[in-house]
Amino acid sequence: MPSTPRWVEAINKALSNPSNKGKNIYQVATVDARNAPHVRSQVHRAFTHPDGRPDLPLLLTSTDARTPKVLQLLANPAVELAWWMEGTQDQFRLSGFAHIVPASPAEPDTSFRFAPIPADALALRTLEAQAFDWEAKRLELFQQMSPGMRASWCVPGAPGSAIGSYEEQKEWPSQVPQEPQTEEDKKNAEMASKNFALMLIEPVSVDWVELGVKPNRRTIFTRREDGGWTEQLAIP
Amino acid sequence: MPSTPRWVEAINKALSNPSNKGKNIYQVATVDARNAPHVRSQVHRAFTHPDGRPDLPLLLTSTDARTPKVLQLLANPAVELAWWMEGTQDQFRLSGFAHIVPASPAEPDTSFRFAPIPADALALRTLEAQAFDWEAKRLELFQQMSPGMRASWCVPGAPGSAIGSYEEQKEWPSQVPQEPQTEEDKKNAEMASKNFALMLIEPVSVDWVELGVKPNRRTIFTRREDGGWTEQLAIP
Repeated sequence: MPSTPRWVEAINKALSNPSNKGKNIYQVATVDARNAPHVRSQVHRAFTHPDGRPDLPLLLTSTDARTPKVLQLLANPAVELAWWMEGTQDQFRLSGFAHIVPASPAEPDTSFRFAPIPADALALRTLEAQAFDWEAKRLELFQQMSPGMRASWCVPGAPGSAIGSYEEQKEWPSQVPQEPQTEEDKKNAEMASKNFALMLIEPVSVDWVELGVKPNRRTIFTRREDGGWTEQLAIP
Repeated sequence: MPSTPRWVEAINKALSNPSNKGKNIYQVATVDARNAPHVRSQVHRAFTHPDGRPDLPLLLTSTDARTPKVLQLLANPAVELAWWMEGTQDQFRLSGFAHIVPASPAEPDTSFRFAPIPADALALRTLEAQAFDWEAKRLELFQQMSPGMRASWCVPGAPGSAIGSYEEQKEWPSQVPQEPQTEEDKKNAEMASKNFALMLIEPVSVDWVELGVKPNRRTIFTRREDGGWTEQLAIP
């Protein structure tokens, strides 16, 4: 019977420690086409896994589909994230694959790019084999977002692109309610949803350093081909 | 007259905000030989700059010379770091070059690798042209480290390498005093110093997102060839 790997329990235990309140943010690293690294903070939304396969956990986060990391991940799906839990002094480093799920096109669209899933990405491939409804998951997560967060996907261009002055921002919506009342709310909600992409991260190795215990501890979890996980103690 | 770029002042201002206490930790991303990203938490020690060139700031941090990132940086000196200041909700992303300064060999040693400085790394090249004493800076930083931190560079192998059980750790020193008293302290201090490497990070672009102000703000600083910095407002 497949079971949840111990590192998921360790993360959830650390997250639920009151000293780590608000530590649902990690830094995700990607590589661009010129082999330069990039890293930015993202919000951890949830763990998920394919039906019947708790041994194949994935992390759910999200992004604006227009950000540079989306193109970076299309070319190179390798990611590593560092999750520093300051309260308990735990660092989790998770390496694996990221998969971006943009909005499904309303009509067939040859420019629509749903990145192929790497051969070694067992969790993503299992989801695909189970006919996982990516679009439903994307909309479910979008529906949970606050009106302020939803407004952030209504900006008129890719995050990071130049603007002339802060005056321009005054025209942008600051709130996009979950239940739109006006025509404008509806238009904004559609735009936000169109730009909102789901990002799934499939770890294949996890490096857990415990700096809150003396002597410090370090455990490296590596996924086997069958989906099970090996644990190796390591020099901190 | 060259001046300190505004992003350094913004970081120092955020760091000095009481709500950001303990936020001297950032996540540094590198790329390995197979073009996979890596990212880990590191402690910000200080800013520095070449004599008379406050417009060319560098960040000082440190590492064990035996960690994988040292080899990664020899092959590819590109780094990006993400610095999330939770209290004020500021994110600083700094991209540029990293340069590792390991202990100078006691005797001429052909295997000693002091990585070449990239042509575009103006701050590092200026330090070199000014005959900067890298070893003195390394030792100065080492001298500031606590006895517990110093002990962390006395581990018997590269951080991350396998050990059989936690029993092995009982043999490792837990404290290496700044002023060694015993022969063993002296031996440990020598070993720790030998493994302690200075890491200089030279940013060439800085992306500052202010999520603590409404509407959110984003400013991208880019270094010009003369060492001055341009500022561009951007979509958050």
